[in-house]
Amino acid sequence: MIKKLFIVSILINTLAVNAQEFTKYVNPFIGTSNFGATNPGAIAPRGMVSVSPFNVAGTQNTLEKDSRWLSNPYVNENTFLTGYSHVNLSGVGCPDLGVILLMPTTGDVETNHLKYGSTYTNETAKAGYYSNVLTKYNIKVETTTTTRTGISRYTFPKGQSNILLNLGLGLTNEEGAAIKIVSPTEIEGMRTVGSFCYYKPEEAYPVYFVAKFSKSATNYGVWKTPKKYKGAEAAWMPYNGKPRLMEGYRKEVLGDSIGSYFSYQFEKPTQVEVKIGVSYVSIENARENLEQETQDFSFETIHQQAEAYWEQQLSKIKVEGGTEDDKTIFYTALYHTLIHPNILNDFNGEYPKMTTRETLKTENTRFTVFSFWDTYRNLHALMSLVYPKSQSDMVKSMLDIYDESGWLPKWELNATETTTMVGDPAGIILTDTYLKGITDFDIEKAYEAMVKSADALENNPLRPGIQPYIENGYLNTDQNGSVSTTQEYNATDYSISLLAKALNKKDDYQRFSKRSISYRKLFDKDLKLLRPRNADGTWHEPFDPLAGANFTKNIGFIEGNAWQYAFMVSHDIKGLMKLMGGKKGFSEQLQKVFSTKQFDMANEPDIAYPYLFNYVKGEEWHTQQLVHELMDEYFQNKPAGLPGNDDTGTMSAWLIYSMMGIYPVSPGDPIYTISTPVFDKITIDLDSNYYQGKTLVIEKSGTEKGIINTIQLDGKAYNSYFINHSDLIKGSNLKINLK
Amino acid sequence: MIKKLFIVSILINTLAVNAQEFTKYVNPFIGTSNFGATNPGAIAPRGMVSVSPFNVAGTQNTLEKDSRWLSNPYVNENTFLTGYSHVNLSGVGCPDLGVILLMPTTGDVETNHLKYGSTYTNETAKAGYYSNVLTKYNIKVETTTTTRTGISRYTFPKGQSNILLNLGLGLTNEEGAAIKIVSPTEIEGMRTVGSFCYYKPEEAYPVYFVAKFSKSATNYGVWKTPKKYKGAEAAWMPYNGKPRLMEGYRKEVLGDSIGSYFSYQFEKPTQVEVKIGVSYVSIENARENLEQETQDFSFETIHQQAEAYWEQQLSKIKVEGGTEDDKTIFYTALYHTLIHPNILNDFNGEYPKMTTRETLKTENTRFTVFSFWDTYRNLHALMSLVYPKSQSDMVKSMLDIYDESGWLPKWELNATETTTMVGDPAGIILTDTYLKGITDFDIEKAYEAMVKSADALENNPLRPGIQPYIENGYLNTDQNGSVSTTQEYNATDYSISLLAKALNKKDDYQRFSKRSISYRKLFDKDLKLLRPRNADGTWHEPFDPLAGANFTKNIGFIEGNAWQYAFMVSHDIKGLMKLMGGKKGFSEQLQKVFSTKQFDMANEPDIAYPYLFNYVKGEEWHTQQLVHELMDEYFQNKPAGLPGNDDTGTMSAWLIYSMMGIYPVSPGDPIYTISTPVFDKITIDLDSNYYQGKTLVIEKSGTEKGIINTIQLDGKAYNSYFINHSDLIKGSNLKINLK
Repeated sequence: MIKKLFIVSILINTLAVNAQEFTKYVNPFIGTSNFGATNPGAIAPRGMVSVSPFNVAGTQNTLEKDSRWLSNPYVNENTFLTGYSHVNLSGVGCPDLGVILLMPTTGDVETNHLKYGSTYTNETAKAGYYSNVLTKYNIKVETTTTTRTGISRYTFPKGQSNILLNLGLGLTNEEGAAIKIVSPTEIEGMRTVGSFCYYKPEEAYPVYFVAKFSKSATNYGVWKTPKKYKGAEAAWMPYNGKPRLMEGYRKEVLGDSIGSYFSYQFEKPTQVEVKIGVSYVSIENARENLEQETQDFSFETIHQQAEAYWEQQLSKIKVEGGTEDDKTIFYTALYHTLIHPNILNDFNGEYPKMTTRETLKTENTRFTVFSFWDTYRNLHALMSLVYPKSQSDMVKSMLDIYDESGWLPKWELNATETTTMVGDPAGIILTDTYLKGITDFDIEKAYEAMVKSADALENNPLRPGIQPYIENGYLNTDQNGSVSTTQEYNATDYSISLLAKALNKKDDYQRFSKRSISYRKLFDKDLKLLRPRNADGTWHEPFDPLAGANFTKNIGFIEGNAWQYAFMVSHDIKGLMKLMGGKKGFSEQLQKVFSTKQFDMANEPDIAYPYLFNYVKGEEWHTQQLVHELMDEYFQNKPAGLPGNDDTGTMSAWLIYSMMGIYPVSPGDPIYTISTPVFDKITIDLDSNYYQGKTLVIEKSGTEKGIINTIQLDGKAYNSYFINHSDLIKGSNLKINLK
Repeated sequence: MIKKLFIVSILINTLAVNAQEFTKYVNPFIGTSNFGATNPGAIAPRGMVSVSPFNVAGTQNTLEKDSRWLSNPYVNENTFLTGYSHVNLSGVGCPDLGVILLMPTTGDVETNHLKYGSTYTNETAKAGYYSNVLTKYNIKVETTTTTRTGISRYTFPKGQSNILLNLGLGLTNEEGAAIKIVSPTEIEGMRTVGSFCYYKPEEAYPVYFVAKFSKSATNYGVWKTPKKYKGAEAAWMPYNGKPRLMEGYRKEVLGDSIGSYFSYQFEKPTQVEVKIGVSYVSIENARENLEQETQDFSFETIHQQAEAYWEQQLSKIKVEGGTEDDKTIFYTALYHTLIHPNILNDFNGEYPKMTTRETLKTENTRFTVFSFWDTYRNLHALMSLVYPKSQSDMVKSMLDIYDESGWLPKWELNATETTTMVGDPAGIILTDTYLKGITDFDIEKAYEAMVKSADALENNPLRPGIQPYIENGYLNTDQNGSVSTTQEYNATDYSISLLAKALNKKDDYQRFSKRSISYRKLFDKDLKLLRPRNADGTWHEPFDPLAGANFTKNIGFIEGNAWQYAFMVSHDIKGLMKLMGGKKGFSEQLQKVFSTKQFDMANEPDIAYPYLFNYVKGEEWHTQQLVHELMDEYFQNKPAGLPGNDDTGTMSAWLIYSMMGIYPVSPGDPIYTISTPVFDKITIDLDSNYYQGKTLVIEKSGTEKGIINTIQLDGKAYNSYFINHSDLIKGSNLKINLK
């Protein structure tokens, strides 16, 4: 505890020196339109809590949460706000969380959010801060956070003011809550969340909270809107289904549609601060989180701490050159990669065990929100390079999950395995991390876990269809997304082979190397594309390589079409080239993806494609040109400035690497491929606990967005567009000279 | 705490000496048919917990809880049992509680009570014990209790057995629960109850519990059946509205329809004991209640303690003579008067404040379930005579309620004021108690509280219609039950006048004496009945003195007709006589009630009528004859052996007094009127802390059920059919000699 307080004071001191050098380039509105699914709410780096404006309820909004598939608490185009939610996901594709909604109002207490909702103006969002003014009430709202506590400051006009805590409303489709007013300055409770992607309702779980108010309520109470009875009894219930107000009530109220109100009578404009501590373990832990993290600090102090914390995190990469917008999209992307995975454990180290949710304790940090189908492609590589301690803790969290559940995570969310998407990507991340020199975890256990999911034929939650995959080398059309999934398993098997080699497990190395290229059996030589096979080995007919774009269903492929998957074998590009008739055939086919507009920047399968021209000598300029064109087209300093779902930072990580001129093109392989940086100079602080160098410097000389002429490493000519991680982290200087 | 443990050991020692001398005469099945609304569940004297078989769910039952108005968890004629509920009301007219249902089953876990329910056989019920055998599963079920903990012992056959804890099912119409499996031997949670009489839903409240199991479950989990979604989202929910099993889950589950299962694999028939501690304050207190009260005692030990406790309570009245059935209906009635009012406070003294439910603490016992419209007529008089310490604590609880809510209770239930029925009877009980010599409470506060409700014209929850009552002396037909309510207010005003006199408040004495006889303005000289007046003073037309029997609605009267209310002015029988043309007119009119079969033994307004002949010299034999006829007709040793709702012991108290040959005919007045006892000798232990005598003995000589010839008090001729309380509690011997 003393240590943590020390950090706080360090942060505050730091603040005085470097205020907003980096945070001034964070625009949290980026990604809040065009289904980016980010939100502009206040959050601390990797925070358990964020305080997001919630404007997706009420049909007056453009996008309404119950009338369509909507995965975010905030949409930039929407206008009708019904509160500020305290646990939120950023950049995901499925609705969940978006609960514990605070809402300030004035006048009589109204508990129906469709009636108390308001439009708003004067929106401001910064790293760790969000503010607006509710036009209906003329209340200024400001929010900030610590890691596990959301802090709101309301500036009320004169007269009756109310602070509502609505536990009925939420983005999640789960229901069920408990609330208890502990005193005129404190409320505690819990809210059920879960069923991410409308799936696995049996793993729904509670999020606990404690709310503390800076001023004692004049009046307070709870409300409940019960379900409506039918039958004989309904006739005896004049209150049937009607909302009830319970003034002064001080025990738990349980229900689906419940909340509390704190009312004040102000003789002049007055500020009230509300702190909400959150936990996934217990109310007691939520209270401890709040008390330990916020002490008796004011809103302003906590705001400064949050900003200082962001400043410190963002400062790990310093960029020079580029426009203000370049810097803004860069640091906002870095900000977005520092939201998920986020911290699950409480201040005291406790966190819920996978699925059954028994209370466990960690000495490290238990991370959560592992959207691996997305993030294995680049985000964890970025973490390994810039935040290796965090990446190490993420890997340890993965192994904890293995210990707890018997399986590595796939799409883990707050200690539930959602098993969303396909593939078994954990092994790629483990290999990639280890081979990059982050080795302070139990690699033998990691290896055991990887091999388990690669080999288990029965009840294997990570690799459905593994039987035909092992037998034939590919999944067949009996299994959904058979081609895509075969490619994903191949990629993981390749990573297992890499790790087997590193660990001197020669038999496994042979075995998994062989397995990793079995996708080749799905290669149609005529089409030069991968295509699905039936259980009897015949090609599936009819086959339309263009079907399946825009998330429409397509046999053989998941969220994509044959073009968007054809090159997703980054571990075997040489093999693919051979299949495609050599470098020329490969290059032509790859160019077709772009020329026929099959490339989809908004989804993961093909995001490495622009970099694949680097595998063909003389074609590297395509990569350089394409990457810059894509950045210009899809990544901008505006709410619609992401190509689509940020995918818990994966799109942002793509941008960060692309703007720095290197890209981890083959996850599992500790290599980067080189392109043209946006900035003149990029300096990455290297963590001395993991890397021998102090900084990695990437420099650019020559014309803006130009084509690369020569590359130098530490002043010497470097004759490749690929570079090993180990060559970069020695304190190296990578100089990219443009034509 | 040491003191309480000492009591336990005393009880166990006592047991060895006097086992079942009195408890053998308790038949808990009496009142479980004919809407007596008692239940045969195990309960300790005035216990917070009872463990009742619950057989009112499922349409295969004769009386089903959701298809009609049903106020009890058990009906003797029903056959389909769906569990054992742990908080229950006895002898009331409205549904509430009947929750925390345990149910043992075998085979696969089934969570739908309509499917897991069973018929049963081998029913046994004793004071503090209930047992049956579930025919579907061949499980023997035994239950017993301490004050705040229910204990169940299940004898399972070989194979898979399960113990379900269903928090969805219940008699109450409230919903909402939380459950958490703490370990393989412990569960905690809460369940919302309330809306007694389908009223005041805004005062619904939680009951908390902790369940401990004697054997660790092999498998365990919770279930939840969520509400069904409609609209766009329903299409994405394959699980929409379906029950979910959550195996091994260890955090709270919240919902309306939830429960838990503990499963076992037994290689031979095996017993499992389950203890459920309950509290209305918190889960922590429920756990403390369980641990303090049950220690590591076995089922058998706790059963013996419960029996010993009952033995000790019932032994306060010893009867000699009479048949075995006489003794059984007598001691069962005494047993029924020792169920409500019951204990609300926890072992540590904590209890919830009225309405808002803040936690308070008492040094005494906080009693609850004050059904005063019923119990003011005789039950509290019985408590004052036989259990004065309890009555003193009940009065103190009434004053606590006044302190907490600003008003005396009317129909208080677990710290909510249900405001059921009419009148303001608390003052009658306070006066009656004080004038009987139980004075160890704050009488000035009591008096203040009584006068407050008698005089407050605005927002008076206890005396609706007080304005016209004060102005005109009666309520008019603008108010529901105007005649009945006028009579009730008169009776209370009379008690205020008595207390005013005792406290030397002369002005109030005059004022309230005058007010107490204003019912006379409703006397119709032609009909010789009370009848409703309109707001303009005219008689309400049409008027049918016979209307309103059997609980049908009747202007002017509550739950009765003009005949059933005509004589309900026990404080002014002399005045009524005068109105009716003297003793003869009074007597003739009173006889008509019986000869025209207008007398209703099943409800309170007229239950003192049989005793009113004692006010007419020479007519006392009517009383003696009638009382015995009524006892024979309505009170029997069988499930239908109560005339209707026991009304939290009021009918039983009528029977006890009637069988003892005395009756508190005019509540508030510390007098009894005399009739023929059933028993040859009745010995009432007098509490030396309140009364100077050691025992009150009532003896009978002469023929069974005969007519009284002479009466002697302490060996001397006694020339009245009325006797003062003060004359009885000196250690007196009242001898009743029959012809």
